[in-house]
Amino acid sequence: MPSSSVDHSDPVFELHRGGKLAVASTVPLTSREDLSLAYTPGVAKVCEAIAADPELVDDYTWVSHTVAVVTDGSAVLGLGNIGPRAAMPVMEGKAVLFKQFGGVDAVPICLDTQDVDQIVATVVALAPSFGGINLEDISAPRCFEIERRLDELLPIPVFHDDQHGTAIVVLAALRNAATLLNRKLGDLRVVVSGAGAAGVAVTRMLAAGGVNPGEIVVCDSRGVLHPDREGLTPVKAELAEFTNAARCQGGITDALRGADVLIGVSGGQIPEQAVAGMAPGGIVFALANPTPEVHPDVAGRHVAVVATGRSDFPNQINNVLAFPGIFRGALDARATRITDNMKVAAADAIASVVAENLTADAIVPSPLDPRVAPAVAEAVLDAARRDGVARA
Amino acid sequence: MPSSSVDHSDPVFELHRGGKLAVASTVPLTSREDLSLAYTPGVAKVCEAIAADPELVDDYTWVSHTVAVVTDGSAVLGLGNIGPRAAMPVMEGKAVLFKQFGGVDAVPICLDTQDVDQIVATVVALAPSFGGINLEDISAPRCFEIERRLDELLPIPVFHDDQHGTAIVVLAALRNAATLLNRKLGDLRVVVSGAGAAGVAVTRMLAAGGVNPGEIVVCDSRGVLHPDREGLTPVKAELAEFTNAARCQGGITDALRGADVLIGVSGGQIPEQAVAGMAPGGIVFALANPTPEVHPDVAGRHVAVVATGRSDFPNQINNVLAFPGIFRGALDARATRITDNMKVAAADAIASVVAENLTADAIVPSPLDPRVAPAVAEAVLDAARRDGVARA
Repeated sequence: MPSSSVDHSDPVFELHRGGKLAVASTVPLTSREDLSLAYTPGVAKVCEAIAADPELVDDYTWVSHTVAVVTDGSAVLGLGNIGPRAAMPVMEGKAVLFKQFGGVDAVPICLDTQDVDQIVATVVALAPSFGGINLEDISAPRCFEIERRLDELLPIPVFHDDQHGTAIVVLAALRNAATLLNRKLGDLRVVVSGAGAAGVAVTRMLAAGGVNPGEIVVCDSRGVLHPDREGLTPVKAELAEFTNAARCQGGITDALRGADVLIGVSGGQIPEQAVAGMAPGGIVFALANPTPEVHPDVAGRHVAVVATGRSDFPNQINNVLAFPGIFRGALDARATRITDNMKVAAADAIASVVAENLTADAIVPSPLDPRVAPAVAEAVLDAARRDGVARA
Repeated sequence: MPSSSVDHSDPVFELHRGGKLAVASTVPLTSREDLSLAYTPGVAKVCEAIAADPELVDDYTWVSHTVAVVTDGSAVLGLGNIGPRAAMPVMEGKAVLFKQFGGVDAVPICLDTQDVDQIVATVVALAPSFGGINLEDISAPRCFEIERRLDELLPIPVFHDDQHGTAIVVLAALRNAATLLNRKLGDLRVVVSGAGAAGVAVTRMLAAGGVNPGEIVVCDSRGVLHPDREGLTPVKAELAEFTNAARCQGGITDALRGADVLIGVSGGQIPEQAVAGMAPGGIVFALANPTPEVHPDVAGRHVAVVATGRSDFPNQINNVLAFPGIFRGALDARATRITDNMKVAAADAIASVVAENLTADAIVPSPLDPRVAPAVAEAVLDAARRDGVARA
């Protein structure tokens, strides 16, 4: 972990002084009558009504428009395991984005434990206070078990954004890139470089969204995932089973030979000659931040469409295109969970916002495009109803 | 638990629709540059600075001006064990009051467990997210152990408002009532009716604030606490040891005979003839809500000063006079805990606001008096520094 001190001339510190969030009251409180309605004795009637009919908590409290942004600080941005306190600025930023784009009231919860059982128990205990749980910056493979168990235990949406937010925006971008290049998702050979939280979710999302899973090859730092490889974690073993139908082996260069798409979510560098071996008219998403797996200018020599995770190159794959609208839609639906169909619907909605004006430098909307979150929310709401997970 | 339905003609339900709280962003987010400061990539510098120097979390996040309002819903108002969801309207109301009077950003956390160990573990786990913990509406005797363990485990203030908020305002009111009647606290014989959360804390607070502990007699529903009584809980046994020097026994009527002060925090009714047996020029605080232990008009026939917990009689003993200023002061001091001296200082500050204009109908400020919280905050800050628990 790099040591760092405060550079008072840097506007980022000035902006962060005192944090980025506040709690606001939405009711008046200037008279004794106000006090007797918002607090005692009047509030007791609302409590009694909810005690008699617990579903009323959605109507008469803020729970139904809130999300807890939960982290253990174990995998924060590219900074690694910096702990709950140092993670707080990111979680506050997330909450700011939730509010700005989705109108969702998000509360950062940075946990002082990295034990899976304790994290699960803590989130279950505080869950009645929130309408949804956004897991954030929790390292793999713990993130998979934590999300799975919480999804089973809780009656509200649980969503690990590093997995699914990234995966949804990747699917949206790949859909538009394929359209631009007159290709079909089902015909593409795709290499996913990275088998952490994002790599696993991207692979599953692409399969759910129309890519032929047998035509996806996943690589981690030790090379191609295939069923005969020893020492795979359970999650990687599962990926190896349903991808890579040709049972290709070797390293990233072997995997990329003749491939149509490279999706880098690893941070590991990929040499230019490996990219040069891809099929003509290819697509590269090099999403590592701040240093993409292959520089976009280098990738651009060999493929037709390039995207990164950075704001200073075209086609930024940014989770903010997904999570505010996803939770807005899920909360509006009072959804009990977030299904694969809801995620695919979100990806389609993101893609559709710029579908009329596709160019190689504009396969995804700007992260600030105000049309995105409402479109995503509506699509997610509809999908929740179709999937039978909506309570409203 | 009384069953209840929603009366749509009642303004209390209209006011509560959608809840009473929102999260607000305090930074701009309209340009790509805003986004790159408040979120990635800029935020990483703030995270790194905090990782290198954890104390910076107080300067560069919202943690240092936040409080978690934590309940398990086991003792909500006078409604009893209505659970975490039905408790939410009270916790939201508390957060509104924190903001309005103390400028404190409070987040309601309603827990889906009533197990002491699980509550402690959960609050410890989420504590890095907050600058203080306000425990609320947790039933006795569990509340004592929960607060004690959290106070030992956490480096931030932990304060069970049902205990200490009530006790602080009682001490403030008693101080002013004594001044009005030309009595000294150390000369008063006091009966505390009720040995739950509030009764225990009131007794301790009065002793810390100048009442002679031997001259306090505590009664529960089975009568006077004395060391020879069998079956006392540990907390009641401790009270019995340091109070009631005369080792009086019997019921509330026995206890009140010749007493100067009655403080009712039980909800049990006290007959008029028991009050009639008090010494001349007495003081009655009948704080049960909505039904005082003795009606203030009845008490007024026999004593000189009467206070209640209700807003429709004079001298309302309302916790809102204490908790916003206490946490404001503790947070401003970056206090590691809330000491007895800080509580006594808060009581003195509350009392002092109306000390110049004391009448029998105005021994405490109005709950809406804007002078109170700043006065309390300043007194608490000073006391924290004197006690060596301030980090700022």
